[in-house]
Amino acid sequence: MTMSLYWASGSPNAWRVLLALEVLRLSFESNFIELSKRQHKTPDFLAMNPRGKVPVLRDGDLVLYESLAILAYLDRVSNGALYGKTPREVATTSRIINEFECYLREPLAVVLRHLLAIGGAPPTALTPTPQQAETASETVRAELRALSQRMEGAQWLAGDRFSAADAAVYPYLRLLARAISKADGRARELSLSPFFDAFPGLTGWFARIEQLPGYDRTYPPHWRTADGQ
Amino acid sequence: MTMSLYWASGSPNAWRVLLALEVLRLSFESNFIELSKRQHKTPDFLAMNPRGKVPVLRDGDLVLYESLAILAYLDRVSNGALYGKTPREVATTSRIINEFECYLREPLAVVLRHLLAIGGAPPTALTPTPQQAETASETVRAELRALSQRMEGAQWLAGDRFSAADAAVYPYLRLLARAISKADGRARELSLSPFFDAFPGLTGWFARIEQLPGYDRTYPPHWRTADGQ
Repeated sequence: MTMSLYWASGSPNAWRVLLALEVLRLSFESNFIELSKRQHKTPDFLAMNPRGKVPVLRDGDLVLYESLAILAYLDRVSNGALYGKTPREVATTSRIINEFECYLREPLAVVLRHLLAIGGAPPTALTPTPQQAETASETVRAELRALSQRMEGAQWLAGDRFSAADAAVYPYLRLLARAISKADGRARELSLSPFFDAFPGLTGWFARIEQLPGYDRTYPPHWRTADGQ
Repeated sequence: MTMSLYWASGSPNAWRVLLALEVLRLSFESNFIELSKRQHKTPDFLAMNPRGKVPVLRDGDLVLYESLAILAYLDRVSNGALYGKTPREVATTSRIINEFECYLREPLAVVLRHLLAIGGAPPTALTPTPQQAETASETVRAELRALSQRMEGAQWLAGDRFSAADAAVYPYLRLLARAISKADGRARELSLSPFFDAFPGLTGWFARIEQLPGYDRTYPPHWRTADGQ
């Protein structure tokens, strides 16, 4: 039976799963959810995921949400192709993902909210203060510098091929790179721009991911429209 | 070769691993790290984990940090005893852990900082405002009510035996229960006390974990001294 994925354009968590499905060459039915139409808050969707979030994966009678749980599932149905086959490989892949989740994800979200709070959108309770943005960007810079250094001598985040770590981390950093390009002035104030000058070790890794077969199908459709890319 | 664990008393992340090691009946060399003596910031410790955090697991030449990565490793060296053997079991265990990490962990940390900011300790930049504590406690209450309801009819968080989900979630909730008992007035203001009245479904699950063989060896030693338990 073919799996079904419910995803939305530009959701980094959905992008994680799209990347994994393409790299694993798993066929799936694609269900595009329009967040602006609140299709993730309909009764049908909430029956699948009470939290009303993408991605959701259906496989037979299994309905699964939480992107990292879906990656773990896809790993097991594909014989360890995402986390590795030995305990050591699994541990390394998992460590890198957990470091991203614990130390980078939240400050990255703050920086993204700061960078994207432009164009006259009124501030919300979630809009960071300049001080919060600066504090968060210090962590982001330190974490990304360490990552960049490590990637100078590596092809992939964990081990010698694409893994769940690449799937989990790339979409968030690609979102950051896009936000930086759209808010270059603010990004320069936070010493985050130009992105690949600040973190040169990420250049080759981004390119490697973007050359993966099927990558184009994972690219957020509304970015093409908005950016003409 | 025997594994070595570096852990600290009362660290929920270390407790996760201690519980898993006991339940799996894996023998290990125990290295007790005194945080008050900053033993986690010595050059030797930082050489193992540059982030200077417990737990750290050594197994031969593998040095592993991040508690969830260690759980994943212990799962694989014990044939799936912590996450399950089928893709579906792995997915469910992983989903529950990720829901805890994404929706409960941070608000829980805020509530813990609020409850434990007593006894004349001066506030720090991390001390939540009363408004932040109230907002965080709303999330904590909602998440724990849902968990409590689910546990009315279940023995363990995922599946029909102790799993990585129990190991990952219990220590944090046990920390919360202790903080509530130590700061009952504040906890009542946040409708979190009495804990088992607020979340009755957790009563049996707590008891089940606390009756596991080896549980006593995982109990934070300084709690016994401080609380006379």
